Amino acid sequence: MPRLPFLALLGVLMTAALPLRAAEVHTFTLDNGMEVVVLEDHRAPAVVHMVWYRVGAADEPPGRSGIAHYLEHLLFKGTEVRAPGEFSELVAANGGTDNAFTSQDYTAYFQRVAADRLDLMMELEADRMVNLQLDDRDIATELVVVQEERNQRTESDPGALFAEQRSAALYQNHPYGIPVIGWMHEVEQLALEDAVDFYRTYYAPNNAILIVAGDVTPDEVRQLAETHYGPIPANPDLPERIRPQEPPHLAERRLVFEDPRVAQPYVVRTYLAPERDAGDQETAAALTILAQVLGGGQTSELNRRLQFETGQAIYTSAFYGGTSLDDTSFGLLIVPAEGVSLDEAETALDDAVAAFLEEGVDAEQLDRIKMRLRAALIYGEDDLQSLARTYGMALTSGLTVQDVEAWPDILQAVTEEDILAAAAEVFDRRASVTGWLTAPADATPAEEAIQ
Amino acid sequence: MPRLPFLALLGVLMTAALPLRAAEVHTFTLDNGMEVVVLEDHRAPAVVHMVWYRVGAADEPPGRSGIAHYLEHLLFKGTEVRAPGEFSELVAANGGTDNAFTSQDYTAYFQRVAADRLDLMMELEADRMVNLQLDDRDIATELVVVQEERNQRTESDPGALFAEQRSAALYQNHPYGIPVIGWMHEVEQLALEDAVDFYRTYYAPNNAILIVAGDVTPDEVRQLAETHYGPIPANPDLPERIRPQEPPHLAERRLVFEDPRVAQPYVVRTYLAPERDAGDQETAAALTILAQVLGGGQTSELNRRLQFETGQAIYTSAFYGGTSLDDTSFGLLIVPAEGVSLDEAETALDDAVAAFLEEGVDAEQLDRIKMRLRAALIYGEDDLQSLARTYGMALTSGLTVQDVEAWPDILQAVTEEDILAAAAEVFDRRASVTGWLTAPADATPAEEAIQ
Repeated sequence: MPRLPFLALLGVLMTAALPLRAAEVHTFTLDNGMEVVVLEDHRAPAVVHMVWYRVGAADEPPGRSGIAHYLEHLLFKGTEVRAPGEFSELVAANGGTDNAFTSQDYTAYFQRVAADRLDLMMELEADRMVNLQLDDRDIATELVVVQEERNQRTESDPGALFAEQRSAALYQNHPYGIPVIGWMHEVEQLALEDAVDFYRTYYAPNNAILIVAGDVTPDEVRQLAETHYGPIPANPDLPERIRPQEPPHLAERRLVFEDPRVAQPYVVRTYLAPERDAGDQETAAALTILAQVLGGGQTSELNRRLQFETGQAIYTSAFYGGTSLDDTSFGLLIVPAEGVSLDEAETALDDAVAAFLEEGVDAEQLDRIKMRLRAALIYGEDDLQSLARTYGMALTSGLTVQDVEAWPDILQAVTEEDILAAAAEVFDRRASVTGWLTAPADATPAEEAIQ
Repeated sequence: MPRLPFLALLGVLMTAALPLRAAEVHTFTLDNGMEVVVLEDHRAPAVVHMVWYRVGAADEPPGRSGIAHYLEHLLFKGTEVRAPGEFSELVAANGGTDNAFTSQDYTAYFQRVAADRLDLMMELEADRMVNLQLDDRDIATELVVVQEERNQRTESDPGALFAEQRSAALYQNHPYGIPVIGWMHEVEQLALEDAVDFYRTYYAPNNAILIVAGDVTPDEVRQLAETHYGPIPANPDLPERIRPQEPPHLAERRLVFEDPRVAQPYVVRTYLAPERDAGDQETAAALTILAQVLGGGQTSELNRRLQFETGQAIYTSAFYGGTSLDDTSFGLLIVPAEGVSLDEAETALDDAVAAFLEEGVDAEQLDRIKMRLRAALIYGEDDLQSLARTYGMALTSGLTVQDVEAWPDILQAVTEEDILAAAAEVFDRRASVTGWLTAPADATPAEEAIQ
């Protein structure tokens, strides 16, 4: 079985696109500007405690790629009152788990613990929001860890390198073209000063969202938040969050990525696509459903046409991540069956999409997809961590709690016309990158295109 | 006759690559850090007076593309003591001409006047280095002028748009991928504050080079420079000039730019290529000669093979601009003859280059090229403005006066082995972008490649 790198990615995107209405949602804002979202759910005596910062890799200064992610690592070093590593040790000693993640648009820290340990979690998290103590040794060793992470996740994975090259080709001006983990040659040069500057600029309560999900009341959260986060002053110099946007895309781009480690060649096309905007999520909803219609599961259009009917593919997919601060992408993927060249596979993919656009959306399939989304909503209620993450992603991507709450109904209201109109808007070759991943030995189809 | 947009470009690049040893060269530095180069030549009673700033489009803050060029326009507005437009009026009233230009690496201002007007030129230029007065009306009207300039030079010229798209695809991280004139959507948003910030940061004597060429002595220049530029304080906060560099290029990129205005389709391939570095100009010299061997004039390899022998092309070219602060590009161009598709033309181009690499450099042709470069040196001595420009470009691109002086001999010392080694280093498809420019009507070859 070949490795199919998009399966994992799709899982994340699907989760993000699910309608979620679990728990009772309360929101308020501390005097220092810190937003608070409480997802009250008393079914189990546990809480998820998250702090999301409205800063990610796309907010990095030029030439300092990777600093957002590197700083995320450094947050686990010591503070004025905690020794390096003590944070996670304390969480574990209290029966909890903790972690953090960085994306283009956000950096988030979370713990899952017994509800009566929320006080301690806030104490720890508030402490490292402003009191981080970094020394040269800490930062040097952690930089090696980050480089090693890039080696493992990216350098050793042709699919990951291929994805980087495609993103760099898709974005002509926006920093989404730069990988979250950073270019290796820039990561190697990151310095203590870069980390401290980034920390002092962006880690402040007026740039943070506190999300607490689970067995708590809003009053408890408010009291604890005011105790721990309330005394931290806002950063009056927090920069406005404006990134360079894309110019008009005027020419389709193509690339062939050859790597001897590739066991299974495939073709991916990504189109620049609009994201969910506050109060304006309809196109994104249509694209979310379009991705399901084309590539979601066994009965999807691509699967039906290319695996069952013609047998040209062993795997197909369509993917779209609409929760993003700026323009995102819509992707199509085909892994050809044995004996089918990448050129033939790409033509087959294009033909299948064209046939779908001509024939329209199957009404029963659309109903099934909406049903599946409703069902996912119900299951989603049980996963507080996923629920909290949905709110965190949305709020750090320019959306509001109201947008999150409206999303399930907007998805359900999507019509066949909406889907076809969104497809017509997005499937513009000039705003696309088509990539072939292949081993040099399998050079025939690649040579055809690059001659 | 079709329009051949690269002819003009080539002219500039060839000029930049010429060895120049005219005039007597003197250099010194003012106490405030302003470098001075005097090119003493008493054959005519005129001078060229230039101030070059070590700042260009590649130094712009993210999202503010076009600010360097816009500011260049604004420098012709008023100062505390001069009314808007008075600068150029005074130059003209004194029988002189003046202008300015902006590139990725520099912004330069110059006047050509009678030698006894040098005093006035310095007074005027020193005044606008620090005393610029901008009001909202000035900047609003000039912004319209700049947008119109972009409309005329870029938006209305498919070849220019094509070049922008190719640069954006070639550079994955470095700001050379952003056009000097700026993306229109960013130019439209440029504000007074952006211009003033850029001006205050970069317009200072310690970021400037004064070049005076013509009928002056170094002592006269020193005295006048100390009088006019000497009192201006250095900017202690001048930022270090470090731009984001390219990651390894791992996948060849291709693009097809279709525009109904294209009368004559053509193919361009550009490879990322090293630039001239201080004390290390040998590879750049070999690439400079390689461009001449492949594409310089009637007897060049591409011309001979593709126009005279096979008749597949009506024009071919190779171009390389080595005077650049960071990595530059090496380009190949073919304009196919009637009935030859872009696909066939590209294959013919590749075959011609491959045949050349196999057969090696024709010794007689290499001698002719070196002779031509020596002759150009002698002619170049007569053009003080071109000579001054050569020094300005070099010094703002990280080179020294010594590098400029050594360049002619380094070019003459280039051997066949050097040329082939440089070609082998640079002709790596993974670090290249191949672009097809075509009209949509001429869709057959384009469709072949983008299916």
